[in-house]
Amino acid sequence: MEKEEPEDNFSEWYNDIIERTGLSDKRYPVKGLNIWPPYGWKLMRNIDQMIRKYFDSKDYQEVNFPTLIPESQFNKEAEHIKGFSNEVYWITHGGNDPLDEKLVLRPTSETAMYPIFSLWVRSHADLPLRIYQIVNVFRYETKQTRTFIRVREIHFIEGHTCHEDYQSAERQVSDDIEIWKNIADEVALPYIMGKRPDWDKFPGAHYTIGVDTFFPSGRSLQIATMHHYKDNFSKPYDIVYTDENGERKYAHQTTFGISERLVGAIVGIHGDKKGLILPPKVAPIQVIIVPIPGEGVIEYCKKLLKNLTEMGIRAKLDDRDQYTPGWKYNDWEEKGIPLRIEIGLREVRDNKVTLAYRTGGKKNMLIESFMSEVQNILNEIQEIIKKNAKEKMDSYIKFIDDIEKSDDVMPNAIYWCGSRECATKIEEKTGKSILSSSEEYGKCIICGEKGNKTIISKKY
Amino acid sequence: MEKEEPEDNFSEWYNDIIERTGLSDKRYPVKGLNIWPPYGWKLMRNIDQMIRKYFDSKDYQEVNFPTLIPESQFNKEAEHIKGFSNEVYWITHGGNDPLDEKLVLRPTSETAMYPIFSLWVRSHADLPLRIYQIVNVFRYETKQTRTFIRVREIHFIEGHTCHEDYQSAERQVSDDIEIWKNIADEVALPYIMGKRPDWDKFPGAHYTIGVDTFFPSGRSLQIATMHHYKDNFSKPYDIVYTDENGERKYAHQTTFGISERLVGAIVGIHGDKKGLILPPKVAPIQVIIVPIPGEGVIEYCKKLLKNLTEMGIRAKLDDRDQYTPGWKYNDWEEKGIPLRIEIGLREVRDNKVTLAYRTGGKKNMLIESFMSEVQNILNEIQEIIKKNAKEKMDSYIKFIDDIEKSDDVMPNAIYWCGSRECATKIEEKTGKSILSSSEEYGKCIICGEKGNKTIISKKY
Repeated sequence: MEKEEPEDNFSEWYNDIIERTGLSDKRYPVKGLNIWPPYGWKLMRNIDQMIRKYFDSKDYQEVNFPTLIPESQFNKEAEHIKGFSNEVYWITHGGNDPLDEKLVLRPTSETAMYPIFSLWVRSHADLPLRIYQIVNVFRYETKQTRTFIRVREIHFIEGHTCHEDYQSAERQVSDDIEIWKNIADEVALPYIMGKRPDWDKFPGAHYTIGVDTFFPSGRSLQIATMHHYKDNFSKPYDIVYTDENGERKYAHQTTFGISERLVGAIVGIHGDKKGLILPPKVAPIQVIIVPIPGEGVIEYCKKLLKNLTEMGIRAKLDDRDQYTPGWKYNDWEEKGIPLRIEIGLREVRDNKVTLAYRTGGKKNMLIESFMSEVQNILNEIQEIIKKNAKEKMDSYIKFIDDIEKSDDVMPNAIYWCGSRECATKIEEKTGKSILSSSEEYGKCIICGEKGNKTIISKKY
Repeated sequence: MEKEEPEDNFSEWYNDIIERTGLSDKRYPVKGLNIWPPYGWKLMRNIDQMIRKYFDSKDYQEVNFPTLIPESQFNKEAEHIKGFSNEVYWITHGGNDPLDEKLVLRPTSETAMYPIFSLWVRSHADLPLRIYQIVNVFRYETKQTRTFIRVREIHFIEGHTCHEDYQSAERQVSDDIEIWKNIADEVALPYIMGKRPDWDKFPGAHYTIGVDTFFPSGRSLQIATMHHYKDNFSKPYDIVYTDENGERKYAHQTTFGISERLVGAIVGIHGDKKGLILPPKVAPIQVIIVPIPGEGVIEYCKKLLKNLTEMGIRAKLDDRDQYTPGWKYNDWEEKGIPLRIEIGLREVRDNKVTLAYRTGGKKNMLIESFMSEVQNILNEIQEIIKKNAKEKMDSYIKFIDDIEKSDDVMPNAIYWCGSRECATKIEEKTGKSILSSSEEYGKCIICGEKGNKTIISKKY
């Protein structure tokens, strides 16, 4: 059976490849709750570790808050609860008895953390406070669920900060954007980033910066957000500090959210008809060694494996007897391993390795050159994956100057004046949402006034 | 105010030191749910990483299962539910609507995993299956809660395996014991280990091996368990494989559980009147450098810090201006940093370092010798901590041959014949529980028949 390109029937391809490669097991008997099997969890954990590195480098500290939030605390932020009250799970009983106070499974941790921040933050010397946690959060999604994209238990990375004033919080948003750029680089994902329209910001946020990427289906996927909260939360939660003049002031806050959607984006954006393509920086296995049976081959492979492992390369030797080399090639290509090394009699005789890039192309090298080049080769593959993805994304987004020419499903770039009125017309005409705008100007596609270059798309 | 030795008033000392050093924040407004602030979470994460290393080395694979378990699945194992039904949290509503099927917050993951194991295990080639996860589990504790010891949200490391037969599962228990020994070594904790009496095993287990350590209060704390489940779970959950002869057989299973109690044990067992004493192998900061102000001191310290960090040592320089060196010494001693380096004018002049061991004693060394010795010095401190703890534990457990001489609160060693009848008498007379027995024989303290050396204690 001819395998399909992801573009052909994206949804089917996506669901199928996730299960077949062991990234997720969807047979758990509750809608929207999936199992992370070893391969998928290793990928997620590599991403988590990488994210920790960048948060730590910007003086964030990791913490871990309880999963359960008492109703009274959850209800305190009226605007916030408005955003989540219809999609939270409620715990009403402990053992056989009703609880004195109902508990919410956190949908995000503002209402768990902020009453405690009000104890942690006393003086200007306690600021800035920068913490993050990597936890699961829960949303009772009523929309259709989709692995990694829209699930009811979400693997979530959430940063929360407190600052002296509006400007310091704004500088934090810039820091978070820097962190994001590094993360995006390591997962090789292209994206657009910008302020959401006011009506589409996070409940309680002063403003929201959204990061979106695009699937081959043409739909956009929000993969990160940064919010400036101003003092919207510090007021109800009483996060107050004494400044250098002894004056009591409300802290200004930000948050930064990233989730398992990164895995979904890696699958959907880098994959091809052969299966996954994993960026070397986060791939659970970076190098797979496949022996072509012959005298001395296995010993040669084992030595190669040992040397690569000692260099810190995540390498694996596939020495299973029951499969042919060809079968193994397909298997590891499907699983997205960036670099395959084929070793047969010829390689052993000539002290060589034959390399097959998951991104295409083969190469023959002396083993010594390979050992000194392997990290560069992996970096090269990382760059190819990044470049391919960026080119694909750019090719999806067609500029239009007539709203009637909006593509059926693919995203478009337009000029938009920023008004709610024109936005409504755009959204009604196209069935698409406004994502974000950039500093490039032209005539608004609706009213003809000065507008910003703006991306519109159907969303996941 | 004179600080107290942990022995003097253990409970108060324990609660106090945990809060003061930032291992836990107990001000979260739900009983039994605590916050892990940065210092405590770093310690827990170091322990997690260390545990991963040993699980991985025995061919366990890490996974992540959903937190929520549907009622029907939870109820399937009647004996198991009997063990937990009174202490689980129930989720009854999603948003404003009652759920079609109630969900349980996992108290442990047998009932989440085993229906899936029945899909994963098909043939003998799928066995052994060895997986673990590091997650939070939830118990609606009605007893008094105590940080790290008895909480309602528990940081938990759980291993689950499936095997062809009883013997292979028993070999797994031996492997788990080996893993445990390595873990105990890295946290420098002494323990006793052995089979629990039948009436004290885990619900559903064929037998349970318990690992206990002892607090200065004399009470014992269970810090790890290994269970052989036989086919007790594989039958209700239908975990069946086809053997080499095509016959269908039930798998035999084991589990292995460890929790945040390890942190509680580290606090309670290694600590002294000055505060925490953290084993170097898991300490968030292994070496603290304290400058005694003077010309060239800070530069000297910074270079030292850089060199230590490059060697992979977790070192920190305390260059805060507002505190005296003496204040800093106390602060870092309280936080349990294994090794302090004091640098003043004399050290700079003579190219030396002055070392203060958290376990006692000072030393002056040339900086070159120190740099080549630092790992050995940390290992030496690790061994001292381990030895001190072992000696303390041994001193708590007094042997008695007359049940009337049982200590009030401290544990005792006795001979016990193994009968339920004598156990009941022992427990009634002493108010203590039987922990485990070893292969040393004498006359049962009750009936005079042949008995095993057995430890009894009051438990946490």
